[in-house]
Amino acid sequence: MTTIKEQLISKVAAEDNIPNCKITIVGAGSVGMACAICILMKELVDELALVDAEADKLRGETLDLLHGSIFLTTSKIVGGKDYSISKNSKLVIVTAGARQKEGESRLDLVQRNVAIMKSIIPNIIQHSPDCKIIIVTNPVDILTYVAWKISGLPVNCVFGSGCNLDSARFRYFIGEKLGIHPTSCHGWIVGEHGDSSVPLWSGVNVAGFPLKCLNPEIGSDSDKEQWKTVHKQVINSAYDILKLKGYTSWAVALSVTNLSETILKNLRRVHPVSTLVKGSYGVNEEVFLSIPCILGRNGISDIVKMNLNSEEENLLKKSADTLWNIQKDVTL
Amino acid sequence: MTTIKEQLISKVAAEDNIPNCKITIVGAGSVGMACAICILMKELVDELALVDAEADKLRGETLDLLHGSIFLTTSKIVGGKDYSISKNSKLVIVTAGARQKEGESRLDLVQRNVAIMKSIIPNIIQHSPDCKIIIVTNPVDILTYVAWKISGLPVNCVFGSGCNLDSARFRYFIGEKLGIHPTSCHGWIVGEHGDSSVPLWSGVNVAGFPLKCLNPEIGSDSDKEQWKTVHKQVINSAYDILKLKGYTSWAVALSVTNLSETILKNLRRVHPVSTLVKGSYGVNEEVFLSIPCILGRNGISDIVKMNLNSEEENLLKKSADTLWNIQKDVTL
Amino acid sequence: MTTIKEQLISKVAAEDNIPNCKITIVGAGSVGMACAICILMKELVDELALVDAEADKLRGETLDLLHGSIFLTTSKIVGGKDYSISKNSKLVIVTAGARQKEGESRLDLVQRNVAIMKSIIPNIIQHSPDCKIIIVTNPVDILTYVAWKISGLPVNCVFGSGCNLDSARFRYFIGEKLGIHPTSCHGWIVGEHGDSSVPLWSGVNVAGFPLKCLNPEIGSDSDKEQWKTVHKQVINSAYDILKLKGYTSWAVALSVTNLSETILKNLRRVHPVSTLVKGSYGVNEEVFLSIPCILGRNGISDIVKMNLNSEEENLLKKSADTLWNIQKDVTL
Amino acid sequence: MTTIKEQLISKVAAEDNIPNCKITIVGAGSVGMACAICILMKELVDELALVDAEADKLRGETLDLLHGSIFLTTSKIVGGKDYSISKNSKLVIVTAGARQKEGESRLDLVQRNVAIMKSIIPNIIQHSPDCKIIIVTNPVDILTYVAWKISGLPVNCVFGSGCNLDSARFRYFIGEKLGIHPTSCHGWIVGEHGDSSVPLWSGVNVAGFPLKCLNPEIGSDSDKEQWKTVHKQVINSAYDILKLKGYTSWAVALSVTNLSETILKNLRRVHPVSTLVKGSYGVNEEVFLSIPCILGRNGISDIVKMNLNSEEENLLKKSADTLWNIQKDVTL
Repeated sequence: MTTIKEQLISKVAAEDNIPNCKITIVGAGSVGMACAICILMKELVDELALVDAEADKLRGETLDLLHGSIFLTTSKIVGGKDYSISKNSKLVIVTAGARQKEGESRLDLVQRNVAIMKSIIPNIIQHSPDCKIIIVTNPVDILTYVAWKISGLPVNCVFGSGCNLDSARFRYFIGEKLGIHPTSCHGWIVGEHGDSSVPLWSGVNVAGFPLKCLNPEIGSDSDKEQWKTVHKQVINSAYDILKLKGYTSWAVALSVTNLSETILKNLRRVHPVSTLVKGSYGVNEEVFLSIPCILGRNGISDIVKMNLNSEEENLLKKSADTLWNIQKDVTL
Repeated sequence: MTTIKEQLISKVAAEDNIPNCKITIVGAGSVGMACAICILMKELVDELALVDAEADKLRGETLDLLHGSIFLTTSKIVGGKDYSISKNSKLVIVTAGARQKEGESRLDLVQRNVAIMKSIIPNIIQHSPDCKIIIVTNPVDILTYVAWKISGLPVNCVFGSGCNLDSARFRYFIGEKLGIHPTSCHGWIVGEHGDSSVPLWSGVNVAGFPLKCLNPEIGSDSDKEQWKTVHKQVINSAYDILKLKGYTSWAVALSVTNLSETILKNLRRVHPVSTLVKGSYGVNEEVFLSIPCILGRNGISDIVKMNLNSEEENLLKKSADTLWNIQKDVTL
Repeated sequence: MTTIKEQLISKVAAEDNIPNCKITIVGAGSVGMACAICILMKELVDELALVDAEADKLRGETLDLLHGSIFLTTSKIVGGKDYSISKNSKLVIVTAGARQKEGESRLDLVQRNVAIMKSIIPNIIQHSPDCKIIIVTNPVDILTYVAWKISGLPVNCVFGSGCNLDSARFRYFIGEKLGIHPTSCHGWIVGEHGDSSVPLWSGVNVAGFPLKCLNPEIGSDSDKEQWKTVHKQVINSAYDILKLKGYTSWAVALSVTNLSETILKNLRRVHPVSTLVKGSYGVNEEVFLSIPCILGRNGISDIVKMNLNSEEENLLKKSADTLWNIQKDVTL
Repeated sequence: MTTIKEQLISKVAAEDNIPNCKITIVGAGSVGMACAICILMKELVDELALVDAEADKLRGETLDLLHGSIFLTTSKIVGGKDYSISKNSKLVIVTAGARQKEGESRLDLVQRNVAIMKSIIPNIIQHSPDCKIIIVTNPVDILTYVAWKISGLPVNCVFGSGCNLDSARFRYFIGEKLGIHPTSCHGWIVGEHGDSSVPLWSGVNVAGFPLKCLNPEIGSDSDKEQWKTVHKQVINSAYDILKLKGYTSWAVALSVTNLSETILKNLRRVHPVSTLVKGSYGVNEEVFLSIPCILGRNGISDIVKMNLNSEEENLLKKSADTLWNIQKDVTL
């Protein structure tokens, strides 16, 4: 029997199986899948791999995406437990990790996630030795340090999505207050992704005009307008959404997609992502914190040296101490 | 106290609050939210409203999208129980509905969904009397009929997403078999969205060459290559994914986003969507089935008259009978 | 004879001819056509109209775009001399105008363009009384004033593309110098679009850190790094490109497309566009200059009040004087 | 003196200069530049190189694009005479070539373009030995043969944009006649790009229904509706636009961008492009003609074997003869 395919098609050349722009997402939970759909819709990749330990769920997610292939411009989407499918990735996004159990200490949680990172990172590097790795799993700063240590890669290759999301939320809330789109409201949150994050009020500006010139108390307790609550809103964002819908997904996925675009297209845009800060801002330990980094094809290409005032530097140091207090007891 | 906003900004003109391209999604479950993120990423709208009865879940989803505003080009995203937020919608996508309970008859399920449609459709029309409505909730063909009846709108204004998804899956599976992208594999599934759907094998073609010319038995039982299994894969797709991940979301959302693009941009592309077929193909009842329709700003602008062979027409008639058997007992 | 169309298609409902997002471009020269292709590729509109006096050239351009329809998501593209085709535009972009003849004074050139604006603006408003108008034709600041006066519209409705381009170039050149993508290099050029434009060095920043803190002399004559040349490059950009390729097109088109996106999607982003500055910054005449404006569906919704130092304010005043020296003698 | 850059930025890692998705366009005339802007707007590449012999014009075009960098996601755009800037291209688009002089024979024109191809192709291959090459310069079928011969590359690597444009125009005109978007009107033009092109009327269909079933005379002289004129419109398109605006640019650029997307994203879509047809359809010479090809990362991956009727095959043979009559006398 001659098949229709044989009658219809005549092969000219062997297929070239090496993708130009491949991303692998490790962890197909709500964050991982939100990253997947955003990256596909943004048309960033010619190949997408999803790796997860839960084979059935993952197969369902992969098929569900593939069934929409006609509406996408990524023709190869693969899913599986085996890291061989991640081969030739330019970028790997790690969203997998354990969630805090009731009564579990934060250190215990980290320790469980260390074990998970040990099962992920070497597998990734085996199949894509030149890839860049974005850690999204929380606590992101400690786990980025962990992943970096396990990886043995140069420090530019492994970083955490960190305050790219906090800064996006910060700018959204400032925009809400001023009636201006967040892309035109500039402001940076650095430090830990989470409770001890540091808002750089002195740099908050619209059209290059610092809001601090209009209200020198901005961000402080004595500010009558209480802009400080904007930072509190940022910190509470994740908690609020967890309470309301059980998990966060869209904003973090959009933030990670934004980082992916910068890296795959080598845009050299500045993002606050989590990287090693030892030796700067009074930090003497091997701690990872978000600071403004120039990202490109080689990951963190450069760091923007922050000109902090003493208050900001103190807060950053505290953020580092908070992390070190847990990290120092982590066994790799 | 003069606020920073007052110092920074001087109002020139009152805002114009009437959106150019607004979509409302009713139902913020996994399908509704997947539609939301796809529509946002595709940059189709200047305003998106989400309506759902579960206020907390909806607030969480809305905030989660808003926190990503800086990465989007839709600056207004609103969520709430009250349909007033849907005002001035050009298009409303209904994904809300009850799921089948264990032991519940299909008719009972439909009847519960009739009640839900009665709580949705009049509210939509009150606030957007000129909108077009896409029904996504299953069983989609019967519920589109129900929604249309409740709406009192002309038949072009209310239609079901129906076989736009089945056809997308059909083309994906054909593409898989041939090693060709689904956009270059042409084939249509019409009739009921689901078990009794009708694949039009005579029209399946690549580059205008019907596969039937290469294998006259294609799609029949006697076909040695058993292309019939491709249609079975389409029918089983939803069941397979339900089993694996618990629900379907991405492919249906991509399909609905594709329909939304055609409508909002008045593209006049041909899509298989569910519409009234009474009076054609031997169907004498007020049944809705997917047939090829030209869609545009006015909804279903025209219908493509299908030139079916007797076998295809019989299958379509059977599809209609299957639906009518349930629909005839529905109380509106 | 029954046509194929009659056999194939059955009409369901009359077409809805009122576009959701229509742009008209007046002037189909190299700038107008570059705007057209960028707006089409950016998928901003469901209808595009091109108006030009040269019927043949315009017909050629329109057909050339239409022949690519299959690759676009704007299905209606119309071209013609008659402004009736501009009906129902949300936004009108004016690129038409006379070019300077050899030996012609700048005032004479302006005066010829006043005549052209008189032939354009009333026709636009007749068919789209609620549209917003962007003037691109040079000298843009004076002609925006002229168009506004002729239009009789409120001041938020008519503005000049002005320094949105100068600022884009400024940020590109800063980015080149620092090795950072221009979107992460912040800086504003205000005032006249052209020779007397004013760079706001005090606001130039990366990640919220003003470069002025690193080099207090930045932008001044005494700066050893001579950043001033960056502003000179901006001023010379148009001249340089005119010399090399005879006209500028791509960057101005991208800038105008960016403004169009903000307006049609009601993004409320801040852009430096040319608007009436009388009564501020020591300007007492009815002069138009670029200053930071919040743009949206209603055009210029708000103005960002600039906190200028005395040097910047002097330069802005000079920029205004330069324009007034010509404008005062213009006969409307 | 410490520069601002030195104070601001601290290098972490050497830049990775090997692009993921680079295109080089040879020839920066109206077609080449239209390709450039469409490829940039479609966000297909992380690096774009423009090569042209006219250094000034090219420098102007390159600067004009670069000045719009802030609105683009391709951060590296380079232009120059020296082919070293094309290094590491995945795809090279050749639009350069001589135009017919008055009184010049077609053979003489071809011969002049052979010389040009000899100056281009070896340089391209030297810097990007694994690239794929699309020839756009006319007469495209002969010059693709010429480029292929000069290149020494396997036949899958060098092909002509050919009838991808003719087919786009064909579908646009069919769509115009039926009131349906061209993406839903299916039809193929194969053979020579130009006067002797072959419309495959038997495959023309909407929703899988061949128009030939509604009007068996479609495309023939005896057809009362004279659909034949649709093919004539396609053939005349280029001549019409040449007369009206002096050159064609937008539609051909959109067609080439569409091919580029398929190749860079390895989509395996079917396109009518010009390739070697020797040994099929009665063609015995080394002639290049457009036939349906599956395109991907490796260029022409497969060919769709056309099931032509004898009339269509005769026309294709004639198309081949027309080309051979010129090609046989070409000196390489």
